[in-house]
Amino acid sequence: MIIPSRNDLLDAQKRILQYIHKTPVFTSRLIDEMVGGELFFKAENLQRMGAFKKRGASNAILSLSKEKLEKGVATHSSGNFAQALALTAKEIGIQSYIVMPENAPSVKKEAVRNYSGKIIECESNLKSREETLDKVVAETGATFIHPYNQMEVILGNATATMELSEQVNDLDFVITPIGGGGLISGTALAAHYFLPNAKVIGSEPLGADDAYRSLKTGKIIPCENPQTIADGLRTSLGTITFPLIQKFVPEIFTVEEQEIIDAMLLIWERLKIVIEPSSAVPLAAILKNKAFFQGKRIGIILSGGNVDIRNFKF
Amino acid sequence: MIIPSRNDLLDAQKRILQYIHKTPVFTSRLIDEMVGGELFFKAENLQRMGAFKKRGASNAILSLSKEKLEKGVATHSSGNFAQALALTAKEIGIQSYIVMPENAPSVKKEAVRNYSGKIIECESNLKSREETLDKVVAETGATFIHPYNQMEVILGNATATMELSEQVNDLDFVITPIGGGGLISGTALAAHYFLPNAKVIGSEPLGADDAYRSLKTGKIIPCENPQTIADGLRTSLGTITFPLIQKFVPEIFTVEEQEIIDAMLLIWERLKIVIEPSSAVPLAAILKNKAFFQGKRIGIILSGGNVDIRNFKF
Repeated sequence: MIIPSRNDLLDAQKRILQYIHKTPVFTSRLIDEMVGGELFFKAENLQRMGAFKKRGASNAILSLSKEKLEKGVATHSSGNFAQALALTAKEIGIQSYIVMPENAPSVKKEAVRNYSGKIIECESNLKSREETLDKVVAETGATFIHPYNQMEVILGNATATMELSEQVNDLDFVITPIGGGGLISGTALAAHYFLPNAKVIGSEPLGADDAYRSLKTGKIIPCENPQTIADGLRTSLGTITFPLIQKFVPEIFTVEEQEIIDAMLLIWERLKIVIEPSSAVPLAAILKNKAFFQGKRIGIILSGGNVDIRNFKF
Repeated sequence: MIIPSRNDLLDAQKRILQYIHKTPVFTSRLIDEMVGGELFFKAENLQRMGAFKKRGASNAILSLSKEKLEKGVATHSSGNFAQALALTAKEIGIQSYIVMPENAPSVKKEAVRNYSGKIIECESNLKSREETLDKVVAETGATFIHPYNQMEVILGNATATMELSEQVNDLDFVITPIGGGGLISGTALAAHYFLPNAKVIGSEPLGADDAYRSLKTGKIIPCENPQTIADGLRTSLGTITFPLIQKFVPEIFTVEEQEIIDAMLLIWERLKIVIEPSSAVPLAAILKNKAFFQGKRIGIILSGGNVDIRNFKF
């Protein structure tokens, strides 16, 4: 595995600068007291289209040649990456093709359509998704961009932690949720070069703990039949993200569903910002493992804020 | 009525500078499209302790003499002003006494206690509240600070719009909710001096439309048996706030409960920030009166973000 260089990260940061927001960092005296440490919440829920995915999607698209750009980009995603790709494509004036399960939430489909993305529906299984995507790519010549298992996406994701390193000093840890591993991989690369004293920690719902089990066993264990409210974390690790996690992530903590909900509402109430359940997993992990984080300065990547509040059950 | 001078406002701004946050301004392309205007949301929900009340409380306390400060401050409030006064008192090392109805939400009581405020419970009626407050003041020598009907509080509140005037150009309107009138009075004073081309508009729940009716009839009509989810707006106008509204506020719009809830969830989902129901009333009023606001640049004071989410029914 070739690890991207410091300059690769700086290039990505420069490349996407105009396509992303620099997001603020939030703190809460009360949450710090609950934890016994100092927490710095990097609010990627306030990122454009509401999630860190805008960073990776922007870098992947902007890394394409002019010839490739003309034919558009395609991905499979029912979540934030779909919106991120569609919005970025719209911004630079190319077409995006989004393969989505027919049963995806209507709010997600609407958002993609708002960004002029073309939705191609598939059945809600891996086989149909891949076949549909292959067909779209064959018919349109669009370039497939993987939601997480692609280095350009990972490099874009890394820029959140690069920013954080300029906003907060002396971090001991940076902690992220793990779905497909794209966020933590980028976070790990950024920390490697820009926060050399910080350890990068992963967090996962127990009901989708494939990364935890993969790290323990040393091979990718797919996420089968995931059961979690954290809908962004139901994906499996990829062939690029897993080795990066093995190399750079010493620890993954798992948490229960109720712990995720409690942490989410704590952030809503105390920071006055809306985060999606996936984004609450790191705080849930910190609150569950206070001894580990005692007295430490901890960066937390709040991955996104796209929730369909009307469908919410507390 | 003596109208405070431009310098009075600037003095207040300087006085409270270290005791408040400069809050950000949010925008949403989608909400702008829904309205057909440009909206600028001043996020006082991200103010310290979660509401604009921190501004007024800070200015009122910091305007007291050293002798008065030593004996502490007292108020009656079951809402954000209680927390604002308690926090500011704690910051400068004096005691606060907060008279609260015994049935006030536990989350509100807890918050005041977290800020070292001393809670004195009363029955949930005006008579008990005033008697209890009089007793507290007589026993402690504390200075009573009114939650809204006091010029120092109004001047502090004004600083939100003074900030907004530095953050956004060419506003046609500034719109706020109206409870006791403290926010809109401060907003009107600030607009008078710092946004001379902007009109200040009020907004109220139909179930607590005392300001609307007071403005129409030319005399203070108390808010009796208010029925609204917007718990910050159940209070009546005061003898200081009402004349300021008469002088500076040409229009008050009223909205239904469901319109408040819809506007609140729209802000939660689109701006990814948590606001309390009271703060959603201005957007509800704008969405209900699109013709009035067509093509205009509108500042909206999001008054606060203190909600007990676990008790929420959507």
